[in-house]
Amino acid sequence: MQRFYFDHNATTPVSAAVLDAWLPALRDVYGNASSIHHFGQVAKQQFEAARRRVAALLNAPERGIVFTSGGTESNNLAIFGVAGAGGHVITTSIEHPAVLNPCCALQAVTKVAVGSTGVVDPVDIRKALRPDTVLISVMHANNELGTLQPIAEISRIAKEAGVLFHVDGVQAAGKIPVDVTALGVDLYSISGHKFYAPKGIGALFVRQGIRLRPLLFGGRQEHERRPGTENVPAAIALGRAAEIARANMPDAALRDRLEQAVVDRIPDAHINAPGTARTPNTTNIRFRKSQRI
Amino acid sequence: MQRFYFDHNATTPVSAAVLDAWLPALRDVYGNASSIHHFGQVAKQQFEAARRRVAALLNAPERGIVFTSGGTESNNLAIFGVAGAGGHVITTSIEHPAVLNPCCALQAVTKVAVGSTGVVDPVDIRKALRPDTVLISVMHANNELGTLQPIAEISRIAKEAGVLFHVDGVQAAGKIPVDVTALGVDLYSISGHKFYAPKGIGALFVRQGIRLRPLLFGGRQEHERRPGTENVPAAIALGRAAEIARANMPDAALRDRLEQAVVDRIPDAHINAPGTARTPNTTNIRFRKSQRI
Repeated sequence: MQRFYFDHNATTPVSAAVLDAWLPALRDVYGNASSIHHFGQVAKQQFEAARRRVAALLNAPERGIVFTSGGTESNNLAIFGVAGAGGHVITTSIEHPAVLNPCCALQAVTKVAVGSTGVVDPVDIRKALRPDTVLISVMHANNELGTLQPIAEISRIAKEAGVLFHVDGVQAAGKIPVDVTALGVDLYSISGHKFYAPKGIGALFVRQGIRLRPLLFGGRQEHERRPGTENVPAAIALGRAAEIARANMPDAALRDRLEQAVVDRIPDAHINAPGTARTPNTTNIRFRKSQRI
Repeated sequence: MQRFYFDHNATTPVSAAVLDAWLPALRDVYGNASSIHHFGQVAKQQFEAARRRVAALLNAPERGIVFTSGGTESNNLAIFGVAGAGGHVITTSIEHPAVLNPCCALQAVTKVAVGSTGVVDPVDIRKALRPDTVLISVMHANNELGTLQPIAEISRIAKEAGVLFHVDGVQAAGKIPVDVTALGVDLYSISGHKFYAPKGIGALFVRQGIRLRPLLFGGRQEHERRPGTENVPAAIALGRAAEIARANMPDAALRDRLEQAVVDRIPDAHINAPGTARTPNTTNIRFRKSQRI
């Protein structure tokens, strides 16, 4: 039986081009990047080159990139890093569990509902602000629908209120152009295995000057924001995936053609959130319950 | 210039045998192990096989193994998981920063000093017990000296006192036989890249019945003890490394020969902690300051 893999919002295979960068690294770049000897310094150099590539994908300053073990850790680091010691957090009802569950573990959280289009209304975010609000956390692209959230507008609201703004960009990075500088976001999470890099590597962009309480305690790696021996080979793969994604974003025309073909051939097939800006790689279609295809 | 790499307590290269298991996995086993479709179930199956191999290395029950991103995370999960909500913790002054720093972030910690042999005296651990002690955390093997700590004795003290016992086994697992069941420890940390598996993967053994507060919040992976998409290829590599290590522990005779050769040829060279049980892969030698070799 021939099988086709369509579940790329859950996880992607590592692409051949990323493998080409990863394989030599996992064979040869094994030094500890925090060691002062030759093997360590070779690793360090490649690690920093990878950081530059990840920064470029987000138009972020290089020093703002903290490597993590993945999207879940990035989101947890952002949320507990800012609000772990107290304060009110605003998020939405459609966030991934890796945002919702950290938020719900805090003392004070408001979950803003979204409308039938799957998009949060910035006015509702503004209304949820309290004097003790310290953080707003909203996803860039929804994992189920692909709908894009009004990040720039929410960013302005956060700035006016003097509140930090975290964006879970796990489903957006590598799929649509992301510019954290233009968007004015303070923290932005990405995950390698969502765009053809390996599992077990991700990053958090942290705007300069933000002091995060670390999630893990240990060595002094990543400017004391994320301890543990640097996973240099995986970071190299993430850097390469970032470089490739930046040059080759997916094409929404292909998605539109697929959706049109389904709607043309199957009665009562409906595209969900059709008129809404969505990531080009995501489609969400509903069929009548008893539909036979 | 020919370079020799001797820094295997900092990190090891991935061995050829582990690569042989890892490469096909990182190419082909890309499904999300939490997905119910074919690709996910293939990944899940291999993930659980890897868990069995890691469990076998420690003579632990399979369900007690939680995969993590590495030794630092394993240690943090054990320490904050038990003592994050309060209570007194006992540790030693020679622990790795990945144990010392989490302990120091807690409200109440006693650091027991060690003698000139680099070994903690169990009597000192007993003396440090307080009515509110909830956890003792002692490393199995020291990273600098290789000295083995009296884990079985401390385990008995912990049991008598009704206190949980965590062992940082990052420098011991894969180098000496480890039997968490015979040792009676409650939590045991290991790190893949210390014994020829990749960076970015580790595990924590958690004795059945221990409720840990998770460090990360998100999806329901690892029986809700460690969320995030399972890093299946790296776990497969860790499983293979565990299997190989179990069958081929390093040989202390080689270390002894090296040490003897150094002492024979270099005047005033001294082996540190010579009469103490040490890991077979570790040597620590001091030379006179102005010594020319």
